[in-house]
Amino acid sequence: MTQPSTPTYTLAELAEHLDARLVGDGSRRLNGLATLKDAGPDRLAFLTNPTYLKDLAATAAGAVLLHPEHAAQCPVDRLELDNPYLGYAKLSRLFDPLLSRPPGGIHPSAVVADDARLGEAVEVGPLAVVEAGVELGDGVVVGPGCVIGAGARIGRGSRLHPNVTVCHGVVIGERAILHSGCVIGGDGFGFAHDGDGWHKIAQLGRVVMGDDVEIGSCSSIDRGALEDTRIGNDVKIDSQVQIAHNVQIGDHSALAGCVGIAGSTRVGRYCMLGGGVGLAGHLTICDRVQVTGMSLVTNSIEEPGVYSSGTGAMQNAQWRKNAVRFKQLDEIARRLARLEKRDPQG
Amino acid sequence: MTQPSTPTYTLAELAEHLDARLVGDGSRRLNGLATLKDAGPDRLAFLTNPTYLKDLAATAAGAVLLHPEHAAQCPVDRLELDNPYLGYAKLSRLFDPLLSRPPGGIHPSAVVADDARLGEAVEVGPLAVVEAGVELGDGVVVGPGCVIGAGARIGRGSRLHPNVTVCHGVVIGERAILHSGCVIGGDGFGFAHDGDGWHKIAQLGRVVMGDDVEIGSCSSIDRGALEDTRIGNDVKIDSQVQIAHNVQIGDHSALAGCVGIAGSTRVGRYCMLGGGVGLAGHLTICDRVQVTGMSLVTNSIEEPGVYSSGTGAMQNAQWRKNAVRFKQLDEIARRLARLEKRDPQG
Amino acid sequence: MTQPSTPTYTLAELAEHLDARLVGDGSRRLNGLATLKDAGPDRLAFLTNPTYLKDLAATAAGAVLLHPEHAAQCPVDRLELDNPYLGYAKLSRLFDPLLSRPPGGIHPSAVVADDARLGEAVEVGPLAVVEAGVELGDGVVVGPGCVIGAGARIGRGSRLHPNVTVCHGVVIGERAILHSGCVIGGDGFGFAHDGDGWHKIAQLGRVVMGDDVEIGSCSSIDRGALEDTRIGNDVKIDSQVQIAHNVQIGDHSALAGCVGIAGSTRVGRYCMLGGGVGLAGHLTICDRVQVTGMSLVTNSIEEPGVYSSGTGAMQNAQWRKNAVRFKQLDEIARRLARLEKRDPQG
Repeated sequence: MTQPSTPTYTLAELAEHLDARLVGDGSRRLNGLATLKDAGPDRLAFLTNPTYLKDLAATAAGAVLLHPEHAAQCPVDRLELDNPYLGYAKLSRLFDPLLSRPPGGIHPSAVVADDARLGEAVEVGPLAVVEAGVELGDGVVVGPGCVIGAGARIGRGSRLHPNVTVCHGVVIGERAILHSGCVIGGDGFGFAHDGDGWHKIAQLGRVVMGDDVEIGSCSSIDRGALEDTRIGNDVKIDSQVQIAHNVQIGDHSALAGCVGIAGSTRVGRYCMLGGGVGLAGHLTICDRVQVTGMSLVTNSIEEPGVYSSGTGAMQNAQWRKNAVRFKQLDEIARRLARLEKRDPQG
Repeated sequence: MTQPSTPTYTLAELAEHLDARLVGDGSRRLNGLATLKDAGPDRLAFLTNPTYLKDLAATAAGAVLLHPEHAAQCPVDRLELDNPYLGYAKLSRLFDPLLSRPPGGIHPSAVVADDARLGEAVEVGPLAVVEAGVELGDGVVVGPGCVIGAGARIGRGSRLHPNVTVCHGVVIGERAILHSGCVIGGDGFGFAHDGDGWHKIAQLGRVVMGDDVEIGSCSSIDRGALEDTRIGNDVKIDSQVQIAHNVQIGDHSALAGCVGIAGSTRVGRYCMLGGGVGLAGHLTICDRVQVTGMSLVTNSIEEPGVYSSGTGAMQNAQWRKNAVRFKQLDEIARRLARLEKRDPQG
Repeated sequence: MTQPSTPTYTLAELAEHLDARLVGDGSRRLNGLATLKDAGPDRLAFLTNPTYLKDLAATAAGAVLLHPEHAAQCPVDRLELDNPYLGYAKLSRLFDPLLSRPPGGIHPSAVVADDARLGEAVEVGPLAVVEAGVELGDGVVVGPGCVIGAGARIGRGSRLHPNVTVCHGVVIGERAILHSGCVIGGDGFGFAHDGDGWHKIAQLGRVVMGDDVEIGSCSSIDRGALEDTRIGNDVKIDSQVQIAHNVQIGDHSALAGCVGIAGSTRVGRYCMLGGGVGLAGHLTICDRVQVTGMSLVTNSIEEPGVYSSGTGAMQNAQWRKNAVRFKQLDEIARRLARLEKRDPQG
């Protein structure tokens, strides 16, 4: 692609974009975002976390986005908004150089099947492959080196970063963002045993993803065995995540890096799985469950709430002593019960 | 590739393929597999798990594959087989649209070295690279975007899905299936320290894989430092798995997603590692060992059996109390022993 | 690339390369390295670990690299060096066939932007993409299928194995080694919540890597949200590692396979993280911290040393009993305290 250039906006344009209250010079030009500490006069800073209130008075930012309650302490022009963090998110996209580039069209080195159906303003980058029967909605961007397998469908406004693989028959909704190295629709892990060796079960289902889904770098979502693996709307999946066949993830759930979910497990809506969490197969996790980092879940969860397993790190010498005792834990509990029985005051 | 179309078979053809007992109309045409619940009259359903026996009476499937003991309850045509799950596996491959496509030949956009030796009916997809001295056996399929490094050898009937990387000198057996994004033969992680910084140890070994190996999406198998990393016959490796240098995996073993095996560890035959299991380096794991999900193995295992570590998830509030106590566990055990000593009845 | 051939050296050349003491026939030709057990007369073996001293007397190697203290027991020609393991590392690179190939130039199938600035002796492999504004230093090798995003800079002597993705604006130092499937500069995982759904925070920072960094297969290093994700000099990162946005890794640190580091955490210099270790976000880990495999770190670490969490694997039947007791651990501790209180000798 051509080298992206960073756009600039006036403070008035930014205020209008957010429907925020502007106090100061609306004609001021800003070319990016920065922290209160780092921002210069051409940057918009923001205060979204009271921890950084100490940096407000001395900021050299051109303007600051903040909650009205901190307005009095702001030494420069400002945008006032009830949810400044949400405002920051919305403005950040204005300054993303990738998003302001004009679409690049179909690069002559891309290999696009004759019968692929491409919407308007579609971009297919250099050395990408779009196989037979693929449908790409309006404004879809397929990065360099991507491969879109036969019959896959990608909804309008979706962006595939370089070297993404979408396997045959996969269905991706609108406004998806797929990061480099991710693989959508590889085979699930299914085999029958004949007593001696393994017989592969062909994975005949698809992956079907809703709208507004994001998938991180090097993540993999396996296709279903017979039914489809299903990712709901507005599901956000970080890097290095593995989703096995037939899994279902409910709308608005978020999965941090290195999560692994085994086959046929259903995760509800508005769930949040911390980094490295593992869910065993064939579980049902209800809505609004949060699991903290690196926990292992081996049973279904029926109550919303926060769940955890494991133990935090400690100095190795201390840990060794405790870890050895873990292997005696059942015995310790039995010995304690025996003592209690004998206790004359018990 | 051209868009695959799903093949159809008569019930008699399916019976013959499985050597199963056919009861019903052998001329019935079936175009796919489905669950008892979802199947329509053009689908074959199957009963492989008694849990689903309740769905049998009401199935709308064209026919059902099941064990003879359930034949009497089957309301439609049927195939009887002693191991219906194995039968399902075998039939599933008949219905895989990828497997019924004719080979596509060498795509003009692929870059194939002059001295590469290609067997009969080899397919090299668009924008794939086959470097010097590579050998591809009969019927090998190299998907779009794959790179096969110099001198690598891939046995007949193997299939590489899109965007697979096989590094120089790697040896892959017959009928391998490599899923998108996997990397076979990247460098192992070896460095010498000079007291201040790291000096790379060139990784001069190879990866050598037996026949009938499957490797999942985004998995990586590192080349050996001096000797080879070795993957036995009929080894099945899921997605996001990491195999370090000089590891050996015995025949018929299966590794679920997100497993990590550190350098020089040897895993026996018929082993099964659950999702997210970690094996430390330089261990020997004997045949027929099963390790449950997310367990950490830091010592060699000499007895077949099932092994585990860790603790299951619980509500966070409860977990916090217990996890704190884990740090006191050695002290708790000592205090208990002290009490026991003082116990007059002890 | 053309098929690499293994170089050969005389024993005198190897001695000079290491500044080692040569005892024997300096004109002897050697074409590779091997273990004491496997080496034939055309190989150099080495003794770097006393465990293998037993193999020294019977070695058939052409020569052996060892510490002077073992010289008397060496039955063949030898190179004596105080740090033979470091010597092995240095020699291993002489025998790496990839490193002795002449650079291949710009392959005609590569797509290189007109305004990309390429140093001398740069190699861009088949079907690689180098976007607008990219700078590649002298001797950089870009493997087949790699994509280098707009404006990225890669320092001289760096090597990108096949199918690497370097995203736009990323800065990579000199002599980097990036293995296949790794992704440098994908988006960090940042979203604001509006009470119902997620709003993406554009990731406007970069990844900035120092010199002599190595990144393993299928690893991902996310770009910063506003500031940069920073990887120091001589940092070694294994395969399947995930580094989230805004993380900083100090010089000379090493991260084994499957490590995951959450956002904004800072790791010091000379740290070593074992396989599968997870670091929570916003932590500070001081210099010279070592964390053992699969440990979870949820608090900052201010003292150098070795840290651990978790428990080792045991037989499943035994583990089940102990794991159940873990859920009673706080109650066990309270019951013990109660007994102690009642103890008349307490």
